[in-house]
Amino acid sequence: MEVKLSLFGFGNVGRAIARVLLEKKALFRERYGLEFKVVSVADRSGVVWLPEGIDLREALLIKETLGKLSSWTNDYEVYDFTPEKAVREIEADIAVDVTNDKEAWKWQLAALKDGKAVVTSNKPPLAFHYSELTKEAEKRSRPYLFEATVMAGTPIIGILRESLLGDTVQRIEAVLNATTTFILSRMEVGVEFEDALRQAQRLGIAERDPSGDVLGTDVGYKATILHCVAFGPVTFNEAKVRGIAEVTAGEVQRARKKGKTIRLVATVERGKITVEPKEVPLDSPLAVESHENAAVVWTDLLGELVIRGAGAGLKETASGVVSDIIKASMMLED
Amino acid sequence: MEVKLSLFGFGNVGRAIARVLLEKKALFRERYGLEFKVVSVADRSGVVWLPEGIDLREALLIKETLGKLSSWTNDYEVYDFTPEKAVREIEADIAVDVTNDKEAWKWQLAALKDGKAVVTSNKPPLAFHYSELTKEAEKRSRPYLFEATVMAGTPIIGILRESLLGDTVQRIEAVLNATTTFILSRMEVGVEFEDALRQAQRLGIAERDPSGDVLGTDVGYKATILHCVAFGPVTFNEAKVRGIAEVTAGEVQRARKKGKTIRLVATVERGKITVEPKEVPLDSPLAVESHENAAVVWTDLLGELVIRGAGAGLKETASGVVSDIIKASMMLED
Repeated sequence: MEVKLSLFGFGNVGRAIARVLLEKKALFRERYGLEFKVVSVADRSGVVWLPEGIDLREALLIKETLGKLSSWTNDYEVYDFTPEKAVREIEADIAVDVTNDKEAWKWQLAALKDGKAVVTSNKPPLAFHYSELTKEAEKRSRPYLFEATVMAGTPIIGILRESLLGDTVQRIEAVLNATTTFILSRMEVGVEFEDALRQAQRLGIAERDPSGDVLGTDVGYKATILHCVAFGPVTFNEAKVRGIAEVTAGEVQRARKKGKTIRLVATVERGKITVEPKEVPLDSPLAVESHENAAVVWTDLLGELVIRGAGAGLKETASGVVSDIIKASMMLED
Repeated sequence: MEVKLSLFGFGNVGRAIARVLLEKKALFRERYGLEFKVVSVADRSGVVWLPEGIDLREALLIKETLGKLSSWTNDYEVYDFTPEKAVREIEADIAVDVTNDKEAWKWQLAALKDGKAVVTSNKPPLAFHYSELTKEAEKRSRPYLFEATVMAGTPIIGILRESLLGDTVQRIEAVLNATTTFILSRMEVGVEFEDALRQAQRLGIAERDPSGDVLGTDVGYKATILHCVAFGPVTFNEAKVRGIAEVTAGEVQRARKKGKTIRLVATVERGKITVEPKEVPLDSPLAVESHENAAVVWTDLLGELVIRGAGAGLKETASGVVSDIIKASMMLED
């Protein structure tokens, strides 16, 4: 089956996805009988649209050498569509949103209303509009998939949505942000918060504006999404979030002396979402290092379940998005 | 939607499933719109069959007080059907096999041919006949689900079948048997193998005939199933299996002195299944204790993924079986 993809976002993650689609073309045909045709690629500079399918090799080359898709003028038309216009104009089976556009819920909704499936790694649409989006998807019988919004490709969403169907989830505790883990790890060896943050920025681990990570917003979004999936719809506004900005190197070192470490921990129970720095024992599954994330899920039948894996990274995020693209395609096929 | 279940096996696991179906009746109706009607229950003594649905409360009471279903003679007919005859005669949507009948592949196949979905926790049918069974299921468009065959309800099968769809799995290492973990843990404190085994039997952790656990056959079956799902069909005959019978307390204690522990580890790569006692570092995800199992999956995109959870237990196994019953029902509904 041929599946037409409309790709929104061509930054690091968007390009990692394009590379997986290119490199694994033969494999996906053989394994799933799926042929992906990317009919549009959009970055902030514009939308490249070709109903016959875009040459992803060229798109990657243009973006990586010229910096923006709108520079691509020889063979392709570049449109200055808004995303909302783009999802309406462009015929595609799946709209893939890997932007960090906070208003993307509007055009994700438009895509669903237009009969498209949506696959996304973009957190705010889910953290603020989960109910509307999933209801619209259900109404139109269109897949709306978002594995990569939490723990990159590590399948915590898949587990909560598609496994444990007879269980009742009681609580989830998770470490869901790599930047704060890096900073807290540096603080363990005596580096103060501000310096650790600057190191993270220098290494490209933290963004230039690190507030989303440091203030806990990023984790708050993810915890909200986990609540939506495990317990039902809420919005980020209901989450109680405290970041790591007030943690001192002294506190971190004192924890260490007790055989503990401080991590930014999300705790999700029915109707209750808390994000805060917490002491966790060094042998706890939550005492992760580096770019690993971990979640512990407690249920009535299975008891304690731990899942741990990459929570960030380009290939690692592409893993989640591409898996969802394949899943959505198989759902559309049925 | 009403879903008719035909339950084969009414030992500890079968009864745990019946209890979950009873206790969560209202929840499953509300959450999934599913009403389960158990039309038959079978143990070694016979098959109780009632097209209008069996009262599970009564079935549990009879089995637990009189020891066998064939004693149940006042309201219900008890048939002496073979399982093969039972799957043909009894009208049901899903045949649930929680026996440990090694020949069950025959009647599982008959059930699929008859248009029934199959949900099972029974390992040998998959370890020897994966290809035939899954091909038949595909041909008839009937779900064939087996989450509980490996790691009880801990969703390793779900992850490998339904997530990571764009990834290529490179290797799996796993600890998949609780009895051997118990015995090895006892040996760490100086108890010799034979005594540790007897302790396990006294505590009801090991069976009276412990050979399946101790010789590694149980793990070999599970590793074979993981290979089938991650890399493609093989049979148990291709697995290289060495159990823990020759491990000495001295070896275990020497490992401990090096900061390691010995566990019965399954290693699964394309075309290669090995089960053998191995030294694992104490901080490795494979250094599990008690009834926990763990699997580490390496893939090309995501890197290292760890899943850890219950690998045995009645509720824990029922978790996997009931989740599959719900999943199969939703697939039948589509």
